[in-house]
Amino acid sequence: MDGPDVAEAPAVLALDIGGSKVAAALVRGGEVLSSEFVPTPAAAGPEAVVAAAERAARSVLAGTGVRPATLGVACAGVVQAGEVRAMSPELLPGWNGFPLVAALEERFLVPVIAANDAQAAAYGEWRHGAGHGLRSMFFVTVSTGVGGGLVLGGQLWRGATGLAGHVGHMAGGEVEWLASGTALARRAAEAGKPGLGAREVIAAAASGNDWATHLVRDAASALARMFRDVKLLVDPELVVMGGSVGLNEEFHRYVAEAVDAAPERLRLPVTPAGLGAMAGLVGAAALAVEERAHVPPS
Amino acid sequence: MDGPDVAEAPAVLALDIGGSKVAAALVRGGEVLSSEFVPTPAAAGPEAVVAAAERAARSVLAGTGVRPATLGVACAGVVQAGEVRAMSPELLPGWNGFPLVAALEERFLVPVIAANDAQAAAYGEWRHGAGHGLRSMFFVTVSTGVGGGLVLGGQLWRGATGLAGHVGHMAGGEVEWLASGTALARRAAEAGKPGLGAREVIAAAASGNDWATHLVRDAASALARMFRDVKLLVDPELVVMGGSVGLNEEFHRYVAEAVDAAPERLRLPVTPAGLGAMAGLVGAAALAVEERAHVPPS
Repeated sequence: MDGPDVAEAPAVLALDIGGSKVAAALVRGGEVLSSEFVPTPAAAGPEAVVAAAERAARSVLAGTGVRPATLGVACAGVVQAGEVRAMSPELLPGWNGFPLVAALEERFLVPVIAANDAQAAAYGEWRHGAGHGLRSMFFVTVSTGVGGGLVLGGQLWRGATGLAGHVGHMAGGEVEWLASGTALARRAAEAGKPGLGAREVIAAAASGNDWATHLVRDAASALARMFRDVKLLVDPELVVMGGSVGLNEEFHRYVAEAVDAAPERLRLPVTPAGLGAMAGLVGAAALAVEERAHVPPS
Repeated sequence: MDGPDVAEAPAVLALDIGGSKVAAALVRGGEVLSSEFVPTPAAAGPEAVVAAAERAARSVLAGTGVRPATLGVACAGVVQAGEVRAMSPELLPGWNGFPLVAALEERFLVPVIAANDAQAAAYGEWRHGAGHGLRSMFFVTVSTGVGGGLVLGGQLWRGATGLAGHVGHMAGGEVEWLASGTALARRAAEAGKPGLGAREVIAAAASGNDWATHLVRDAASALARMFRDVKLLVDPELVVMGGSVGLNEEFHRYVAEAVDAAPERLRLPVTPAGLGAMAGLVGAAALAVEERAHVPPS
Protein backbone atom coordinates (compact mmCIF):
# COMPACT_ATOMS: atom_id res chain seq x y z
CA MET A 1 0.00 0.00 0.00
CA ASP A 2 3.02 2.29 0.27
CA GLY A 3 3.61 4.87 -2.40
CA PRO A 4 6.95 5.84 -3.89
CA ASP A 5 9.73 7.17 -1.66
CA VAL A 6 9.28 10.72 -0.40
CA ALA A 7 12.46 11.85 -2.13
CA GLU A 8 11.28 10.45 -5.46
CA ALA A 9 7.67 11.61 -5.21
CA PRO A 10 6.64 14.58 -7.34
CA ALA A 11 5.90 17.93 -5.69
CA VAL A 12 2.19 18.66 -5.91
CA LEU A 13 0.34 21.90 -5.48
CA ALA A 14 -2.68 21.55 -3.20
CA LEU A 15 -5.50 23.90 -2.25
CA ASP A 16 -7.98 23.67 0.60
CA ILE A 17 -10.98 25.98 0.18
CA GLY A 18 -13.13 26.42 3.25
CA GLY A 19 -15.74 28.87 4.43
CA SER A 20 -13.28 30.95 6.49
CA LYS A 21 -9.84 30.28 5.01
CA VAL A 22 -8.12 29.24 1.82
CA ALA A 23 -4.88 27.26 2.09
CA ALA A 24 -2.29 26.59 -0.57
CA ALA A 25 0.62 24.22 -0.11
CA LEU A 26 3.43 22.48 -1.89
CA VAL A 27 3.26 18.84 -0.85
CA ARG A 28 5.69 16.03 -1.54
CA GLY A 29 4.91 12.46 -0.51
CA GLY A 30 2.68 13.49 2.37
CA GLU A 31 5.00 16.23 3.63
CA VAL A 32 3.91 19.87 3.46
CA LEU A 33 7.04 21.68 2.17
CA SER A 34 5.47 25.13 2.47
CA SER A 35 1.99 26.54 2.89
CA GLU A 36 0.06 29.77 2.99
CA PHE A 37 -3.31 30.45 4.62
CA VAL A 38 -5.46 33.46 3.66
CA PRO A 39 -9.00 34.48 4.67
CA THR A 40 -11.71 33.33 2.25
CA PRO A 41 -13.33 36.29 0.46
CA ALA A 42 -16.55 34.29 0.67
CA ALA A 43 -18.97 37.18 0.18
CA ALA A 44 -17.26 38.12 -3.11
CA GLY A 45 -18.25 34.83 -4.75
CA PRO A 46 -16.43 31.83 -6.19
CA GLU A 47 -14.31 33.62 -8.83
CA ALA A 48 -12.86 35.91 -6.15
CA VAL A 49 -12.13 32.91 -3.92
CA VAL A 50 -10.41 31.10 -6.77
CA ALA A 51 -8.37 34.24 -7.49
CA ALA A 52 -7.33 34.39 -3.82
CA ALA A 53 -6.39 30.71 -3.99
CA GLU A 54 -4.29 31.39 -7.08
CA ARG A 55 -2.45 34.23 -5.35
CA ALA A 56 -1.74 32.03 -2.34
CA ALA A 57 -0.54 29.25 -4.62
CA ARG A 58 1.76 31.54 -6.64
CA SER A 59 3.19 32.84 -3.36
CA VAL A 60 3.88 29.28 -2.17
CA LEU A 61 5.58 28.44 -5.46
CA ALA A 62 7.58 31.70 -5.71
CA GLY A 63 11.30 31.10 -5.70
CA THR A 64 11.03 27.30 -5.42
CA GLY A 65 11.58 26.68 -9.11
CA VAL A 66 8.95 23.92 -8.84
CA ARG A 67 6.37 23.63 -11.61
CA PRO A 68 3.83 21.09 -10.33
CA ALA A 69 2.29 18.84 -12.97
CA THR A 70 -1.04 18.44 -11.18
CA LEU A 71 -3.18 20.35 -8.72
CA GLY A 72 -5.26 18.78 -5.97
CA VAL A 73 -8.06 20.75 -4.37
CA ALA A 74 -10.13 20.08 -1.29
CA CYS A 75 -13.30 22.16 -1.13
CA ALA A 76 -16.22 22.64 1.23
CA GLY A 77 -19.54 21.39 -0.17
CA VAL A 78 -20.35 18.38 -2.32
CA VAL A 79 -17.89 17.97 -5.17
CA GLN A 80 -19.12 15.94 -8.12
CA ALA A 81 -17.73 15.75 -11.64
CA GLY A 82 -15.60 18.82 -10.97
CA GLU A 83 -18.51 20.97 -9.82
CA VAL A 84 -19.41 22.15 -6.34
CA ARG A 85 -22.87 21.78 -4.89
CA ALA A 86 -23.29 23.78 -1.70
CA MET A 87 -24.75 21.85 1.22
CA SER A 88 -24.77 25.02 3.35
CA PRO A 89 -25.23 27.97 0.96
CA GLU A 90 -24.50 30.38 3.82
CA LEU A 91 -20.95 28.93 4.04
CA LEU A 92 -19.94 29.68 0.44
CA PRO A 93 -22.62 31.84 -1.19
CA GLY A 94 -22.94 31.53 -4.97
CA TRP A 95 -21.07 28.23 -5.25
CA ASN A 96 -23.97 25.95 -6.18
CA GLY A 97 -23.03 24.47 -9.55
CA PHE A 98 -19.70 26.34 -9.72
CA PRO A 99 -17.32 24.53 -12.13
CA LEU A 100 -14.37 24.49 -9.74
CA VAL A 101 -12.14 22.15 -11.74
CA ALA A 102 -12.60 24.06 -15.02
CA ALA A 103 -11.95 27.41 -13.28
CA LEU A 104 -8.71 26.12 -11.72
CA GLU A 105 -7.51 24.40 -14.89
CA GLU A 106 -7.97 27.66 -16.78
CA ARG A 107 -5.77 29.48 -14.27
CA PHE A 108 -3.11 26.83 -13.60
CA LEU A 109 -3.02 25.00 -16.97
CA VAL A 110 -2.49 21.63 -15.26
CA PRO A 111 -4.98 18.80 -14.61
CA VAL A 112 -6.96 19.35 -11.43
CA ILE A 113 -8.42 16.71 -9.12
CA ALA A 114 -11.07 17.95 -6.68
CA ALA A 115 -12.78 16.39 -3.68
CA ASN A 116 -14.93 17.46 -0.78
CA ASP A 117 -12.67 18.72 2.03
CA ALA A 118 -13.57 16.03 4.57
CA GLN A 119 -13.18 13.33 1.89
CA ALA A 120 -9.75 14.71 0.98
CA ALA A 121 -8.78 14.79 4.66
CA ALA A 122 -9.95 11.17 4.99
CA TYR A 123 -7.69 10.18 2.12
CA GLY A 124 -4.79 12.18 3.61
CA GLU A 125 -5.19 10.45 6.98
CA TRP A 126 -5.34 7.07 5.29
CA ARG A 127 -2.40 7.70 2.99
CA HIS A 128 -0.05 9.47 5.38
CA GLY A 129 -1.73 9.80 8.78
CA ALA A 130 -3.45 7.81 11.51
CA GLY A 131 -5.09 5.33 9.13
CA HIS A 132 -1.97 4.37 7.23
CA GLY A 133 -1.84 0.74 6.13
CA LEU A 134 -5.51 -0.05 6.84
CA ARG A 135 -7.81 -1.63 4.28
CA SER A 136 -10.78 0.49 5.38
CA MET A 137 -11.17 3.61 7.46
CA PHE A 138 -13.79 6.14 8.41
CA PHE A 139 -12.64 9.70 9.04
CA VAL A 140 -14.78 12.14 10.98
CA THR A 141 -14.02 15.81 11.46
CA VAL A 142 -15.69 17.58 14.37
CA SER A 143 -15.24 21.35 14.27
CA THR A 144 -17.76 24.06 13.30
CA GLY A 145 -19.77 21.25 11.69
CA VAL A 146 -19.41 17.47 11.50
CA GLY A 147 -18.24 15.84 8.27
CA GLY A 148 -16.44 12.73 7.21
CA GLY A 149 -15.07 10.47 4.54
CA LEU A 150 -14.61 6.79 3.78
CA VAL A 151 -11.55 5.03 2.42
CA LEU A 152 -12.53 1.51 1.35
CA GLY A 153 -10.23 -1.06 -0.17
CA GLY A 154 -7.49 1.57 -0.44
CA GLN A 155 -9.57 4.07 -2.38
CA LEU A 156 -11.45 7.21 -1.46
CA TRP A 157 -15.14 6.30 -1.73
CA ARG A 158 -16.84 9.47 -3.00
CA GLY A 159 -20.28 7.98 -3.61
CA ALA A 160 -22.49 8.13 -6.69
CA THR A 161 -23.23 11.85 -6.23
CA GLY A 162 -20.17 12.88 -4.19
CA LEU A 163 -22.14 12.79 -0.96
CA ALA A 164 -20.44 9.86 0.80
CA GLY A 165 -19.30 10.65 4.32
CA HIS A 166 -21.76 13.50 5.00
CA VAL A 167 -22.41 12.05 8.42
CA GLY A 168 -23.25 15.32 10.17
CA HIS A 169 -26.70 15.07 8.60
CA MET A 170 -27.28 11.42 9.61
CA ALA A 171 -30.06 10.55 12.06
CA GLY A 172 -32.00 13.59 10.92
CA GLY A 173 -29.03 15.89 11.60
CA GLU A 174 -28.71 14.82 15.23
CA VAL A 175 -24.90 14.53 15.07
CA GLU A 176 -24.31 18.08 13.89
CA TRP A 177 -27.07 19.39 16.16
CA LEU A 178 -25.46 17.92 19.30
CA ALA A 179 -21.77 17.27 18.59
CA SER A 180 -20.41 20.15 16.48
CA GLY A 181 -18.49 23.06 17.98
CA THR A 182 -21.39 25.29 16.99
CA ALA A 183 -23.75 22.99 18.89
CA LEU A 184 -21.65 23.04 22.07
CA ALA A 185 -21.52 26.85 22.01
CA ARG A 186 -25.25 27.12 21.26
CA ARG A 187 -26.22 24.69 23.98
CA ALA A 188 -23.95 26.40 26.49
CA ALA A 189 -25.72 29.69 25.75
CA GLU A 190 -29.07 27.91 26.19
CA ALA A 191 -27.79 26.64 29.56
CA GLY A 192 -27.13 30.22 30.67
CA LYS A 193 -23.44 30.40 29.69
CA PRO A 194 -23.39 32.62 26.60
CA GLY A 195 -20.24 33.61 24.73
CA LEU A 196 -18.34 30.39 25.32
CA GLY A 197 -16.65 28.46 22.52
CA ALA A 198 -16.53 24.66 22.26
CA ARG A 199 -13.07 24.62 23.81
CA GLU A 200 -14.29 26.45 26.93
CA VAL A 201 -17.30 24.15 27.24
CA ILE A 202 -15.06 21.07 27.08
CA ALA A 203 -12.65 22.63 29.60
CA ALA A 204 -15.58 23.36 31.92
CA ALA A 205 -16.67 19.73 31.65
CA ALA A 206 -13.13 18.55 32.40
CA SER A 207 -13.13 20.79 35.50
CA GLY A 208 -16.26 19.06 36.78
CA ASN A 209 -19.02 21.52 35.90
CA ASP A 210 -22.20 19.49 35.65
CA TRP A 211 -23.90 21.66 33.02
CA ALA A 212 -20.87 21.31 30.73
CA THR A 213 -20.36 17.61 31.41
CA HIS A 214 -23.96 17.04 30.37
CA LEU A 215 -23.46 18.84 27.03
CA VAL A 216 -20.15 17.15 26.23
CA ARG A 217 -21.58 13.73 27.12
CA ASP A 218 -24.53 14.39 24.78
CA ALA A 219 -22.09 15.31 22.01
CA ALA A 220 -19.98 12.21 22.63
CA SER A 221 -23.06 9.96 22.73
CA ALA A 222 -24.34 11.35 19.44
CA LEU A 223 -20.98 10.61 17.83
CA ALA A 224 -20.88 7.12 19.37
CA ARG A 225 -24.38 6.36 18.01
CA MET A 226 -23.26 7.52 14.59
CA PHE A 227 -20.10 5.37 14.77
CA ARG A 228 -22.30 2.39 15.64
CA ASP A 229 -24.38 2.99 12.52
CA VAL A 230 -21.18 3.33 10.48
CA LYS A 231 -20.04 -0.01 11.90
CA LEU A 232 -23.36 -1.69 11.08
CA LEU A 233 -23.56 -0.35 7.54
CA VAL A 234 -19.92 -0.17 6.38
CA ASP A 235 -17.88 -1.91 9.10
CA PRO A 236 -14.53 -0.17 8.58
CA GLU A 237 -11.49 -1.05 10.68
CA LEU A 238 -11.09 2.27 12.45
CA VAL A 239 -12.52 5.74 13.05
CA VAL A 240 -9.94 8.51 12.72
CA MET A 241 -11.26 11.66 14.41
CA GLY A 242 -10.00 15.12 13.47
CA GLY A 243 -11.17 18.72 13.53
CA SER A 244 -10.59 21.32 16.24
CA VAL A 245 -13.15 19.73 18.58
CA GLY A 246 -12.37 16.14 17.55
CA LEU A 247 -8.67 16.60 18.32
CA ASN A 248 -9.29 18.03 21.78
CA GLU A 249 -7.84 15.45 24.21
CA GLU A 250 -10.57 15.88 26.82
CA PHE A 251 -13.25 15.56 24.18
CA HIS A 252 -11.59 12.42 22.85
CA ARG A 253 -11.80 10.88 26.33
CA TYR A 254 -15.56 11.49 26.46
CA VAL A 255 -16.02 9.99 22.99
CA ALA A 256 -13.93 6.94 23.88
CA GLU A 257 -16.06 6.47 27.01
CA ALA A 258 -19.29 6.67 24.98
CA VAL A 259 -17.93 4.22 22.38
CA ASP A 260 -16.93 1.76 25.12
CA ALA A 261 -20.55 1.61 26.26
CA ALA A 262 -21.52 -0.22 23.03
CA PRO A 263 -21.53 -4.04 22.86
CA GLU A 264 -18.10 -5.24 21.72
CA ARG A 265 -19.17 -6.49 18.29
CA LEU A 266 -20.63 -3.05 17.49
CA ARG A 267 -17.64 -1.10 18.81
CA LEU A 268 -15.51 0.81 16.36
CA PRO A 269 -12.16 1.97 17.77
CA VAL A 270 -11.50 5.72 17.55
CA THR A 271 -8.06 7.24 17.17
CA PRO A 272 -7.00 10.91 16.85
CA ALA A 273 -6.11 12.20 13.40
CA GLY A 274 -2.40 12.54 12.69
CA LEU A 275 -2.18 15.41 10.21
CA GLY A 276 -4.17 18.12 11.99
CA ALA A 277 -5.15 21.05 9.79
CA MET A 278 -2.94 19.72 6.96
CA ALA A 279 -5.03 16.58 6.31
CA GLY A 280 -7.10 18.16 3.51
CA LEU A 281 -4.02 19.53 1.72
CA VAL A 282 -2.08 16.26 2.07
CA GLY A 283 -5.09 14.25 0.90
CA ALA A 284 -5.81 16.53 -2.06
CA ALA A 285 -2.16 16.26 -3.12
CA ALA A 286 -2.23 12.47 -2.80
CA LEU A 287 -5.46 12.26 -4.81
CA ALA A 288 -3.95 14.45 -7.52
CA VAL A 289 -1.03 12.06 -7.86
CA GLU A 290 -2.90 8.79 -7.43
CA GLU A 291 -6.24 9.34 -9.13
CA ARG A 292 -5.98 9.64 -12.86
CA ALA A 293 -6.50 13.22 -14.03
CA HIS A 294 -9.47 13.07 -16.37
CA VAL A 295 -8.98 16.40 -18.13
CA PRO A 296 -5.69 17.05 -19.92
CA PRO A 297 -4.19 20.55 -19.68
CA SER A 298 -5.73 22.82 -22.29
CA MET B 1 -19.10 -5.56 -15.98
CA ASP B 2 -20.69 -8.49 -17.74
CA GLY B 3 -19.49 -11.97 -16.91
CA PRO B 4 -18.93 -14.78 -19.35
CA ASP B 5 -21.83 -16.09 -21.43
CA VAL B 6 -24.33 -18.26 -19.59
CA ALA B 7 -23.60 -21.19 -21.86
CA GLU B 8 -19.87 -20.98 -21.17
CA ALA B 9 -20.10 -20.29 -17.42
CA PRO B 10 -19.30 -23.16 -15.09
CA ALA B 11 -22.09 -24.84 -13.13
CA VAL B 12 -21.74 -23.96 -9.46
CA LEU B 13 -23.27 -25.60 -6.44
CA ALA B 14 -24.81 -23.08 -4.06
CA LEU B 15 -26.31 -23.37 -0.58
CA ASP B 16 -28.48 -20.94 1.33
CA ILE B 17 -28.71 -21.71 5.04
CA GLY B 18 -31.40 -19.85 6.94
CA GLY B 19 -33.17 -20.21 10.25
CA SER B 20 -36.18 -22.02 8.76
CA LYS B 21 -34.99 -23.56 5.49
CA VAL B 22 -31.88 -24.82 3.75
CA ALA B 23 -31.69 -24.48 -0.02
CA ALA B 24 -29.32 -26.15 -2.45
CA ALA B 25 -29.11 -25.28 -6.12
CA LEU B 26 -27.12 -25.83 -9.25
CA VAL B 27 -26.51 -22.40 -10.74
CA ARG B 28 -25.01 -21.46 -14.07
CA GLY B 29 -24.35 -17.82 -14.99
CA GLY B 30 -27.12 -16.49 -12.76
CA GLU B 31 -29.66 -19.11 -13.78
CA VAL B 32 -30.89 -21.65 -11.22
CA LEU B 33 -30.87 -24.96 -13.16
CA SER B 34 -32.39 -26.94 -10.30
CA SER B 35 -32.96 -26.44 -6.59
CA GLU B 36 -34.16 -28.17 -3.48
CA PHE B 37 -35.49 -26.59 -0.29
CA VAL B 38 -35.62 -28.52 3.02
CA PRO B 39 -36.53 -27.41 6.56
CA THR B 40 -33.53 -26.38 8.70
CA PRO B 41 -32.98 -28.85 11.57
CA ALA B 42 -31.94 -25.81 13.59
CA ALA B 43 -32.41 -27.30 17.03
CA ALA B 44 -30.06 -30.19 16.17
CA GLY B 45 -27.07 -27.84 15.79
CA PRO B 46 -24.75 -26.84 12.97
CA GLU B 47 -23.37 -30.28 12.03
CA ALA B 48 -26.92 -31.58 11.51
CA VAL B 49 -27.75 -28.53 9.39
CA VAL B 50 -24.64 -29.03 7.28
CA ALA B 51 -25.55 -32.70 6.85
CA ALA B 52 -29.05 -31.70 5.67
CA ALA B 53 -27.48 -29.22 3.27
CA GLU B 54 -25.22 -31.96 1.92
CA ARG B 55 -28.19 -34.27 1.34
CA ALA B 56 -30.07 -31.51 -0.49
CA ALA B 57 -27.00 -30.77 -2.59
CA ARG B 58 -26.42 -34.43 -3.50
CA SER B 59 -30.08 -34.67 -4.51
CA VAL B 60 -29.75 -31.58 -6.74
CA LEU B 61 -26.64 -33.02 -8.37
CA ALA B 62 -28.01 -36.58 -8.75
CA GLY B 63 -28.22 -37.65 -12.36
CA THR B 64 -26.86 -34.38 -13.76
CA GLY B 65 -23.33 -35.69 -14.23
CA VAL B 66 -22.11 -32.26 -13.07
CA ARG B 67 -19.19 -32.13 -10.66
CA PRO B 68 -18.97 -28.47 -9.55
CA ALA B 69 -15.46 -27.17 -8.93
CA THR B 70 -16.52 -24.70 -6.24
CA LEU B 71 -19.27 -24.28 -3.68
CA GLY B 72 -20.83 -20.97 -2.69
CA VAL B 73 -22.76 -20.69 0.54
CA ALA B 74 -25.01 -17.97 1.88
CA CYS B 75 -25.65 -18.25 5.61
CA ALA B 76 -27.62 -16.39 8.27
CA GLY B 77 -25.43 -14.61 10.82
CA VAL B 78 -22.15 -12.77 10.42
CA VAL B 79 -19.70 -14.69 8.26
CA GLN B 80 -16.06 -13.80 8.73
CA ALA B 81 -12.96 -15.75 7.68
CA GLY B 82 -15.11 -18.80 7.02
CA GLU B 83 -16.69 -18.81 10.47
CA VAL B 84 -20.21 -17.89 11.50
CA ARG B 85 -20.95 -15.53 14.33
CA ALA B 86 -24.59 -15.57 15.34
CA MET B 87 -26.23 -12.16 15.59
CA SER B 88 -29.47 -13.77 16.79
CA PRO B 89 -28.51 -16.96 18.66
CA GLU B 90 -32.18 -17.98 18.78
CA LEU B 91 -32.19 -18.21 14.96
CA LEU B 92 -29.41 -20.77 14.68
CA PRO B 93 -28.52 -22.08 18.15
CA GLY B 94 -24.95 -23.31 18.60
CA TRP B 95 -23.53 -21.59 15.53
CA ASN B 96 -21.40 -18.96 17.23
CA GLY B 97 -17.85 -19.61 16.01
CA PHE B 98 -18.88 -22.57 13.84
CA PRO B 99 -16.24 -23.16 11.10
CA LEU B 100 -18.74 -23.34 8.23
CA VAL B 101 -16.23 -23.26 5.38
CA ALA B 102 -14.01 -25.99 6.87
CA ALA B 103 -17.05 -28.20 7.59
CA LEU B 104 -18.32 -27.86 4.02
CA GLU B 105 -14.89 -28.34 2.43
CA GLU B 106 -14.49 -31.57 4.39
CA ARG B 107 -17.78 -32.88 2.99
CA PHE B 108 -17.60 -31.59 -0.60
CA LEU B 109 -13.81 -31.60 -1.21
CA VAL B 110 -14.00 -28.38 -3.24
CA PRO B 111 -13.10 -24.81 -2.27
CA VAL B 112 -15.96 -23.04 -0.48
CA ILE B 113 -16.75 -19.31 -0.50
CA ALA B 114 -19.16 -18.18 2.24
CA ALA B 115 -20.99 -14.93 2.87
CA ASN B 116 -23.80 -13.65 5.04
CA ASP B 117 -27.12 -14.40 3.32
CA ALA B 118 -28.19 -10.77 2.77
CA GLN B 119 -24.70 -9.92 1.48
CA ALA B 120 -24.86 -12.86 -0.94
CA ALA B 121 -28.32 -11.75 -2.08
CA ALA B 122 -26.97 -8.22 -2.60
CA TYR B 123 -24.25 -9.62 -4.84
CA GLY B 124 -26.77 -11.78 -6.70
CA GLU B 125 -29.05 -8.79 -7.35
CA TRP B 126 -26.08 -6.74 -8.53
CA ARG B 127 -24.61 -9.47 -10.71
CA HIS B 128 -27.81 -10.86 -12.26
CA GLY B 129 -30.81 -8.95 -10.89
CA ALA B 130 -32.21 -5.46 -10.39
CA GLY B 131 -28.83 -3.80 -9.80
CA HIS B 132 -27.10 -5.17 -12.88
CA GLY B 133 -24.61 -2.78 -14.45
CA LEU B 134 -24.47 -0.31 -11.55
CA ARG B 135 -21.24 0.83 -9.95
CA SER B 136 -22.75 0.84 -6.46
CA MET B 137 -25.88 -0.60 -4.95
CA PHE B 138 -27.48 -1.13 -1.57
CA PHE B 139 -29.67 -4.19 -1.13
CA VAL B 140 -32.18 -4.41 1.70
CA THR B 141 -34.23 -7.47 2.55
CA VAL B 142 -37.40 -6.94 4.57
CA SER B 143 -38.94 -10.19 5.79
CA THR B 144 -38.89 -11.71 9.31
CA GLY B 145 -36.03 -9.30 10.03
CA VAL B 146 -34.33 -6.53 8.11
CA GLY B 147 -30.87 -7.07 6.61
CA GLY B 148 -28.83 -5.80 3.75
CA GLY B 149 -25.65 -5.70 1.75
CA LEU B 150 -23.47 -3.28 -0.19
CA VAL B 151 -21.90 -3.75 -3.59
CA LEU B 152 -19.34 -0.97 -4.14
CA GLY B 153 -17.16 -0.54 -7.20
CA GLY B 154 -18.36 -3.89 -8.50
CA GLN B 155 -17.40 -5.86 -5.41
CA LEU B 156 -19.32 -7.19 -2.45
CA TRP B 157 -18.24 -5.03 0.49
CA ARG B 158 -18.23 -7.39 3.48
CA GLY B 159 -16.63 -5.02 5.99
CA ALA B 160 -13.66 -5.54 8.28
CA THR B 161 -15.53 -8.01 10.52
CA GLY B 162 -18.17 -9.24 8.03
CA LEU B 163 -20.81 -6.96 9.52
CA ALA B 164 -21.36 -4.56 6.59
CA GLY B 165 -25.02 -4.18 5.63
CA HIS B 166 -26.50 -5.14 9.01
CA VAL B 167 -28.90 -2.24 8.71
CA GLY B 168 -31.74 -3.75 10.73
CA HIS B 169 -29.82 -2.77 13.86
CA MET B 170 -29.13 0.82 12.74
CA ALA B 171 -30.62 3.73 14.66
CA GLY B 172 -30.64 1.61 17.81
CA GLY B 173 -32.57 -1.18 16.08
CA GLU B 174 -35.43 1.09 15.04
CA VAL B 175 -35.63 -0.33 11.52
CA GLU B 176 -36.13 -3.93 12.58
CA TRP B 177 -38.39 -2.85 15.45
CA LEU B 178 -40.79 -1.00 13.12
CA ALA B 179 -40.32 -2.33 9.59
CA SER B 180 -39.80 -6.11 9.76
CA GLY B 181 -42.60 -8.60 9.17
CA THR B 182 -42.28 -9.59 12.80
CA ALA B 183 -42.75 -5.94 13.80
CA LEU B 184 -45.88 -5.51 11.69
CA ALA B 185 -47.44 -8.64 13.21
CA ARG B 186 -46.42 -7.61 16.76
CA ARG B 187 -47.75 -4.09 16.35
CA ALA B 188 -50.99 -5.35 14.85
CA ALA B 189 -51.49 -7.54 17.92
CA GLU B 190 -50.74 -4.52 20.13
CA ALA B 191 -53.39 -2.61 18.17
CA GLY B 192 -55.95 -5.28 19.02
CA LYS B 193 -55.61 -7.38 15.86
CA PRO B 194 -53.78 -10.51 17.02
CA GLY B 195 -52.88 -13.41 14.75
CA LEU B 196 -52.30 -11.38 11.59
CA GLY B 197 -49.17 -11.74 9.48
CA ALA B 198 -47.36 -8.87 7.77
CA ARG B 199 -49.17 -9.62 4.50
CA GLU B 200 -52.58 -9.23 6.14
CA VAL B 201 -51.54 -6.00 7.84
CA ILE B 202 -50.39 -4.55 4.51
CA ALA B 203 -53.59 -5.71 2.82
CA ALA B 204 -55.64 -4.09 5.59
CA ALA B 205 -53.74 -0.84 5.03
CA ALA B 206 -54.35 -1.04 1.29
CA SER B 207 -58.09 -1.51 2.01
CA GLY B 208 -58.13 1.74 3.97
CA ASN B 209 -58.03 0.54 7.58
CA ASP B 210 -56.57 3.38 9.60
CA TRP B 211 -54.91 1.24 12.26
CA ALA B 212 -53.05 -0.73 9.56
CA THR B 213 -52.18 2.32 7.46
CA HIS B 214 -50.57 3.82 10.54
CA LEU B 215 -48.38 0.73 11.11
CA VAL B 216 -47.36 0.36 7.49
CA ARG B 217 -46.54 4.08 7.22
CA ASP B 218 -44.37 3.78 10.36
CA ALA B 219 -42.54 0.84 8.76
CA ALA B 220 -42.07 2.71 5.49
CA SER B 221 -40.84 5.84 7.29
CA ALA B 222 -38.29 3.86 9.31
CA LEU B 223 -36.96 2.35 6.08
CA ALA B 224 -36.88 5.76 4.37
CA ARG B 225 -34.93 7.24 7.31
CA MET B 226 -32.45 4.39 7.07
CA PHE B 227 -32.10 4.85 3.28
CA ARG B 228 -31.39 8.53 3.92
CA ASP B 229 -28.57 7.59 6.29
CA VAL B 230 -27.27 5.10 3.71
CA LYS B 231 -27.29 7.91 1.15
CA LEU B 232 -25.44 10.30 3.47
CA LEU B 233 -22.79 7.79 4.50
CA VAL B 234 -22.27 5.62 1.40
CA ASP B 235 -24.23 7.33 -1.40
CA PRO B 236 -24.90 4.31 -3.64
CA GLU B 237 -26.79 4.65 -6.91
CA LEU B 238 -29.82 2.57 -5.97
CA VAL B 239 -31.64 0.66 -3.26
CA VAL B 240 -32.82 -2.78 -4.35
CA MET B 241 -35.49 -4.04 -1.95
CA GLY B 242 -36.24 -7.74 -1.53
CA GLY B 243 -37.67 -10.10 1.06
CA SER B 244 -41.26 -11.28 1.45
CA VAL B 245 -42.39 -7.92 2.89
CA GLY B 246 -40.07 -5.82 0.73
CA LEU B 247 -41.40 -7.41 -2.46
CA ASN B 248 -45.03 -6.80 -1.57
CA GLU B 249 -46.31 -4.31 -4.16
CA GLU B 250 -48.52 -2.38 -1.75
CA PHE B 251 -45.69 -2.15 0.75
CA HIS B 252 -43.38 -0.89 -1.99
CA ARG B 253 -45.82 1.92 -2.73
CA TYR B 254 -45.74 3.07 0.91
CA VAL B 255 -41.95 2.97 0.95
CA ALA B 256 -41.71 4.93 -2.32
CA GLU B 257 -44.07 7.54 -0.83
CA ALA B 258 -41.93 7.86 2.31
CA VAL B 259 -38.74 8.12 0.24
CA ASP B 260 -40.29 10.86 -1.92
CA ALA B 261 -40.83 12.98 1.19
CA ALA B 262 -37.04 13.47 1.54
CA PRO B 263 -35.28 16.46 -0.09
CA GLU B 264 -34.17 15.49 -3.60
CA ARG B 265 -30.44 15.45 -2.92
CA LEU B 266 -30.98 12.98 -0.06
CA ARG B 267 -33.35 10.74 -2.02
CA LEU B 268 -32.20 7.26 -2.94
CA PRO B 269 -34.36 5.54 -5.57
CA VAL B 270 -35.80 2.17 -4.53
CA THR B 271 -36.52 -0.65 -6.94
CA PRO B 272 -37.90 -4.17 -6.30
CA ALA B 273 -35.44 -7.06 -6.28
CA GLY B 274 -35.40 -9.19 -9.40
CA LEU B 275 -34.39 -12.64 -8.18
CA GLY B 276 -36.89 -13.22 -5.36
CA ALA B 277 -36.01 -16.10 -3.05
CA MET B 278 -33.19 -17.17 -5.38
CA ALA B 279 -31.01 -14.07 -4.80
CA GLY B 280 -28.90 -15.66 -2.05
CA LEU B 281 -28.24 -18.81 -4.09
CA VAL B 282 -27.42 -16.86 -7.27
CA GLY B 283 -25.17 -14.49 -5.33
CA ALA B 284 -23.36 -17.27 -3.47
CA ALA B 285 -22.73 -19.03 -6.79
CA ALA B 286 -21.42 -15.83 -8.39
CA LEU B 287 -19.14 -15.16 -5.40
CA ALA B 288 -17.81 -18.72 -5.62
CA VAL B 289 -16.85 -18.16 -9.25
CA GLU B 290 -15.65 -14.58 -8.99
CA GLU B 291 -13.93 -14.34 -5.63
CA ARG B 292 -10.73 -16.29 -5.49
CA ALA B 293 -11.13 -19.43 -3.45
CA HIS B 294 -8.55 -19.10 -0.68
CA VAL B 295 -8.41 -22.72 0.44
CA PRO B 296 -7.47 -25.40 -2.09
CA PRO B 297 -9.36 -28.70 -1.94
CA SER B 298 -7.74 -31.02 0.59
